[in-house]
Amino acid sequence: MDATPQAFDRVLSSMCTRPHPAAARAAQRFLADNPGDPATYPDVAALEEHVLDALGTVTGLADPAGYVAGGGTEANMQAVRAARDLTASDDPVVVAPTSVHFSFQKAADVLDVNLRLVPTDDDYRADPDAVAAAVDDDTALVVGVAGTTEFGRVDPIPELAAIAREAGTRFHVDAAWGGFHLPFTDHAWHFGHAPVDTLTIDPHKVGRAPIPAGGFLARDDATLDALAVETPYLETTSQATLAGTRSGAGVAGAAAALDAQWPDEYRENHERATANATYLAENLRDRGYDVVTPELPLVAFDLPEATFDAVRADGWRLSRTGSGEARVVCMPHVTRAMLEAFLDTLDTARVGTRE
Amino acid sequence: MDATPQAFDRVLSSMCTRPHPAAARAAQRFLADNPGDPATYPDVAALEEHVLDALGTVTGLADPAGYVAGGGTEANMQAVRAARDLTASDDPVVVAPTSVHFSFQKAADVLDVNLRLVPTDDDYRADPDAVAAAVDDDTALVVGVAGTTEFGRVDPIPELAAIAREAGTRFHVDAAWGGFHLPFTDHAWHFGHAPVDTLTIDPHKVGRAPIPAGGFLARDDATLDALAVETPYLETTSQATLAGTRSGAGVAGAAAALDAQWPDEYRENHERATANATYLAENLRDRGYDVVTPELPLVAFDLPEATFDAVRADGWRLSRTGSGEARVVCMPHVTRAMLEAFLDTLDTARVGTRE
Repeated sequence: MDATPQAFDRVLSSMCTRPHPAAARAAQRFLADNPGDPATYPDVAALEEHVLDALGTVTGLADPAGYVAGGGTEANMQAVRAARDLTASDDPVVVAPTSVHFSFQKAADVLDVNLRLVPTDDDYRADPDAVAAAVDDDTALVVGVAGTTEFGRVDPIPELAAIAREAGTRFHVDAAWGGFHLPFTDHAWHFGHAPVDTLTIDPHKVGRAPIPAGGFLARDDATLDALAVETPYLETTSQATLAGTRSGAGVAGAAAALDAQWPDEYRENHERATANATYLAENLRDRGYDVVTPELPLVAFDLPEATFDAVRADGWRLSRTGSGEARVVCMPHVTRAMLEAFLDTLDTARVGTRE
Repeated sequence: MDATPQAFDRVLSSMCTRPHPAAARAAQRFLADNPGDPATYPDVAALEEHVLDALGTVTGLADPAGYVAGGGTEANMQAVRAARDLTASDDPVVVAPTSVHFSFQKAADVLDVNLRLVPTDDDYRADPDAVAAAVDDDTALVVGVAGTTEFGRVDPIPELAAIAREAGTRFHVDAAWGGFHLPFTDHAWHFGHAPVDTLTIDPHKVGRAPIPAGGFLARDDATLDALAVETPYLETTSQATLAGTRSGAGVAGAAAALDAQWPDEYRENHERATANATYLAENLRDRGYDVVTPELPLVAFDLPEATFDAVRADGWRLSRTGSGEARVVCMPHVTRAMLEAFLDTLDTARVGTRE
């Protein structure tokens, strides 16, 4: 069957992007290696250690525990699983802002824990007072998001961490998307800034690794020990990952992407993406659209249904938040020229729909 | 960091192998596509439907429900999750032979269900009488294995399915490894042979798709509905997969692998692998080793510790069953010449260790 890979010249809402060329080359070489079986595939296992060290550098933690996961969903699920298995409560609760990624709802379903969602403040960030009020004796985990999926907001991580610490619960940061922007901002978000237990940062999003390359990091080995199951017939005797066989392409691609881009190319990407987000926000405001002022390079704005449909019909890959705003994620493949073309399409559609 | 992909010329125990050349080419083209977001990446979503149809052809089910999973572990976990969520029991039990893959223990840990393991018969297969005796009102799922990981055995699937049907529980077949050998045997193992509810068959094992390409198939849509969670901000409104973002390379690679090899190349691989397993078993017996007579092309045999260590030290990737037998899995990359070289190494090591 013939099929064509998605051209990225009209993809505006995805958090996936073209892999870095060095990452794509590395992925192709390691398509058959399984980091889930390190005794059989030692070189890709060594690459995974290299990726962990590099992600530790990005997230302020020397020698982190963790592994290259299938993606942010697996990493977030493992954080919830560890909290569930390490808590004393027999009816564990995860306290998170309503802005968390839906993978936490999936984790709650799969792991049979309660997800207690706390309304965000009027600027779409977790509200520490509301989170503190929601924490109780059954709380096993508090979650903060450093770069929300819908609005690109960064929660007050140190305040949330202090609440978790005070309550004696674990604390997880979801930086799956934001993690390769935040090092070039003034935000406090990582292991070095607060008592964070686990953190998600995905090389296969802004990191420009090929899919699948999520990042699950933990401050201590005890977290991984809590996740480990025995593995008969593998030469390694236990496995803490959710998956069994894993992608060598993802691991090798992540290693190549980090080696090629950290820190200079990632900084350049952050600056270019931020400038593009500012450009788009200003041009949308000039046209009278209500825009959520971008914090990280993600622009959410009100768009009438008819215009949205016309833009989609013109081939643009645009999606909406749960509350209906259109979202443009300024990923590495999103250029100024793309945004100019998008604005032209918007203007044409607007006339066409007599908005 | 420099690293070298594993050369497969000494890999004897892995269930991974070199991808088919057409599959590797397809994977490289779709490294950035995310089948988890079909409205943004429609072509790879269409390829996934194509893979499902092809896997339905292999497993005797027209228009199967399911998806391309990260691997057999995710597929097995989803089968357990569906059973847990669809059962009336509030303390669900999964009944499986002791020969099941360790992913069922992982699934039990993650999903908080009870795994009741039933001893196999003296030829390493599930014992229907023992399974029937183990099923009770809390049983949500009975599992049969069509090609066990340790001994390559095929459980009596129709008998196990009848037990499950009689008890009103769901029935799952794990054919993750065996699924691309069994169509060329007389075994009864799939949807067309018995009332199977869900089945695991991994394109990235004997199917020669690149990692990650597992296969999760279900007879009816209700199974997938039970697994679905809502997905705000994606244009598609729900997601039944365990992962969020998924690998387009795995999906496109699986499509290319199936198109290139089903059925003729898969049949040729089965015949070659079976001949190699017979050759190895005979030559090991000639040397006085106790060999478990192969059913599918996997050879398990007793090997003294010192000889095993010497063989490993010589670079062979050899692993053992939980009960200690060495295992050689006759994957597509395992040639007659490799087995001859392995036997030579064995002879030399044997002398060296004065076995």
